[in-house]
Amino acid sequence: MPHPSASFSATLRLHLKDSPGSFARVANAIAEADGLLDAIDLVSVDHGTKVRDVTVFAEDSAHLERIVEAVGALDGVTVDHVSDRTFLMHLGGKLQVKSKVPLKTRDDLSMAYTPGVARVCEAIAADPEKVWNLTVKRNTVAIVTDGTAVLGLGDIGPEASLPVMEGKAILFGEFGGVDAWPLALATKDVDEIVATVTAIAPVFGGINLEDISAPRCFEIERRLDEALDIPVFHDDQHGTAIVTLAALLNALKVVDKRLEDVRIVVTGVGAAGDAVTDLLMASGARDVIGCDRRGVIHAGREDLTPVKAAYAARTNPTGVRGSADEALAGADVFVGLSGPGAVSLAGVRTMAPRPIVFAMANPTPEIPPEDVYEFAGVVATGRSDYPNQINNVLAFPGVFRGALGVRASTVTPAMRSAAAHAIAAVVQEAELDPEYIIPSVFNPEVATAVAAAVAEAAERDGVARRPRGAGATATA
Amino acid sequence: MPHPSASFSATLRLHLKDSPGSFARVANAIAEADGLLDAIDLVSVDHGTKVRDVTVFAEDSAHLERIVEAVGALDGVTVDHVSDRTFLMHLGGKLQVKSKVPLKTRDDLSMAYTPGVARVCEAIAADPEKVWNLTVKRNTVAIVTDGTAVLGLGDIGPEASLPVMEGKAILFGEFGGVDAWPLALATKDVDEIVATVTAIAPVFGGINLEDISAPRCFEIERRLDEALDIPVFHDDQHGTAIVTLAALLNALKVVDKRLEDVRIVVTGVGAAGDAVTDLLMASGARDVIGCDRRGVIHAGREDLTPVKAAYAARTNPTGVRGSADEALAGADVFVGLSGPGAVSLAGVRTMAPRPIVFAMANPTPEIPPEDVYEFAGVVATGRSDYPNQINNVLAFPGVFRGALGVRASTVTPAMRSAAAHAIAAVVQEAELDPEYIIPSVFNPEVATAVAAAVAEAAERDGVARRPRGAGATATA
Repeated sequence: MPHPSASFSATLRLHLKDSPGSFARVANAIAEADGLLDAIDLVSVDHGTKVRDVTVFAEDSAHLERIVEAVGALDGVTVDHVSDRTFLMHLGGKLQVKSKVPLKTRDDLSMAYTPGVARVCEAIAADPEKVWNLTVKRNTVAIVTDGTAVLGLGDIGPEASLPVMEGKAILFGEFGGVDAWPLALATKDVDEIVATVTAIAPVFGGINLEDISAPRCFEIERRLDEALDIPVFHDDQHGTAIVTLAALLNALKVVDKRLEDVRIVVTGVGAAGDAVTDLLMASGARDVIGCDRRGVIHAGREDLTPVKAAYAARTNPTGVRGSADEALAGADVFVGLSGPGAVSLAGVRTMAPRPIVFAMANPTPEIPPEDVYEFAGVVATGRSDYPNQINNVLAFPGVFRGALGVRASTVTPAMRSAAAHAIAAVVQEAELDPEYIIPSVFNPEVATAVAAAVAEAAERDGVARRPRGAGATATA
Repeated sequence: MPHPSASFSATLRLHLKDSPGSFARVANAIAEADGLLDAIDLVSVDHGTKVRDVTVFAEDSAHLERIVEAVGALDGVTVDHVSDRTFLMHLGGKLQVKSKVPLKTRDDLSMAYTPGVARVCEAIAADPEKVWNLTVKRNTVAIVTDGTAVLGLGDIGPEASLPVMEGKAILFGEFGGVDAWPLALATKDVDEIVATVTAIAPVFGGINLEDISAPRCFEIERRLDEALDIPVFHDDQHGTAIVTLAALLNALKVVDKRLEDVRIVVTGVGAAGDAVTDLLMASGARDVIGCDRRGVIHAGREDLTPVKAAYAARTNPTGVRGSADEALAGADVFVGLSGPGAVSLAGVRTMAPRPIVFAMANPTPEIPPEDVYEFAGVVATGRSDYPNQINNVLAFPGVFRGALGVRASTVTPAMRSAAAHAIAAVVQEAELDPEYIIPSVFNPEVATAVAAAVAEAAERDGVARRPRGAGATATA
């Protein structure tokens, strides 16, 4: 059964010869092609011809083409042109830079710009801390990518990654009230990326690294975190870790197990898998087994990269070997951060009773959720069209909102853990259910709760440079 | 006589004991201290005390303090606090990043972000030119500085330069409809600046270099222009050159002389002086004499840097030597790009009849305009409180608007010259007057005229990659 959606929707401009039932035949053709008719607008009527804009939802590009063909094949119907709604939305980019102050008079100009601005510059030169009060730094994050690991598309380069980064910037604003600006870099070299981000850091209160492939992302984040006095946060790692821990905390309540006791099998030990494992273990998990395409990561393997050897050293305490499927035998939790087929249905069936299955690969989960509902305790995915969507949008806006609010110098593990617990706590104990372990991305409580928890943890960890809730001052 | 202005204004919160004439005494104290009373607001009335917010304009910080003291010294008046309006305007920065698309529903999210955005990314990966259509690159400029030559303040560092860069971004938006984002770099190293700007270039349709000290600015601009396929424009050089040429074209009409015939003396041969000289010569000037603090730049001097030696080789055709004052003897045009005292009134008096005097140093002109009005043909400054303000704001918004509109790969000398002629032409022949040679910065015709002229010149020079007025398409 197709899943038509807005992300594959188009507006068809049709010329329809006036005759009884002419539009009904169009609607019928769309339905027969499994398309979803969303909206109809009449553009004009002229000499027995109606011009109509018809918006349809399809499942994918090929499906959209089939629908357009089916409509165009009708007698008395001409398809004038097809406007892809997603592309229309992207014309000219999705972001704009706006002034927060008026600039209509000489007085405005003399304060926002020369000569008045010179006094503000001098105040910052005399006391560098004032940059936090008197410039965009206070509320601004750079979204930095090199375009090497974009969505499921891989290394598509900085230009092609930009629509994702712009979208991310919108999410920062919409959910966190944070101003975020995308910087897609024309280099994949670790040294150059570190040098570039270090150079541009004065303008920003935080750095959100995005879609940078492993293992380079580990070194880039570590070196930037050391070099800069502002938070550096690779969302693919830590955002994913936070929302995964949040979902798992609640899922364990549903099946009445403790994090300390469960065996967790993770497939995919790249950027996300590594960080998810670390945060789960920092939060109490003891028995985490990671798997790559060649099976379980264990110290006895001789094909391990340095990153994976370190992973083997701190995980898999019972020395499990074999395939991912074999590792699932008796496990309580499966966390899929890989791709479809990483485990089999037969393997998942060997898990402990009421297993927790997080099949988070996008767009195609490791295992079809439909196949495991009957025996699983909790099922979650990364998709919006199944219950329990585990989505980073729940984490990063609130994490940066909280970090910026207290001028945190870094994001500590305790801040990440606090974010996860805050997300989990948005779902009340009484609401908890196998199909409701994690709040909706549109739940406005989430970012506020995350920000408060992150700020508090930053204070506890001594990385806050400003008390929570402190006001700003307008003194020179 | 003091010049109180909004750029040194403050709002005083006063507690006034109710008595006849109590406010009149405040107004009187402000006037006696040479302050300007701008606005009065009543905040509250309580037990025979009125709380009032009183906004005053002063000439500078010290003057503001004197006014506050004078008011505070009055019987029955307490100054509760003083809010500096310029600092208030800067709280939290002057820019925000806004979404141009809605993000309120799942459908919005599925088009602006995942999964729909993936198709847009793929379209750009398949055809990199599409980055111009489908991302912010089309309309976005980076304002890049290293904070080494900010206003008249010098090397105050990247953080302290930010208020200027944010103000510049506002001007780009307000006057050019261009989205501009500031990047203040934590490095002064030429190689690092070039590498950083090259790395961040994918996001931007143009690079506006700003307040980078000479001679590094020359090499940085040249290397970036070679490395990038987008316009690179050091505003301190080329913006100043464009508006200076524009003003001079009209000033020459007022005194009825030709650019080809006049002798022009320039004081200050840093970033601005170098570029001004080049654009004047490219536009027909033949006799330009530059001066630094040691006097006229000529080939016989042994203390010249390589940049100044090159300057000597292409200017001063008659081999003038001596001081700037001596060079002025018989000269038709003085262009001051230096500082107060660079020339003397006695020197200016030796110029040819009806001299053109551009004393553009800010905030203090090379020579007080009041001293030369009686004998000069045309006087212009960089200040807004004298007639004929020569301000870069007249140039850069339109230059980038025009360059972005045709996706220019660079800014050629002909584009700069076209911009200058377009600015000059906004003042009609019939309107030309010694006190009106250049349009107001608030004249909305300017940026449009500059953009059209720049785009046309880009086409003529073969650096446009898109026809003027071409529409955008929303196809995959």
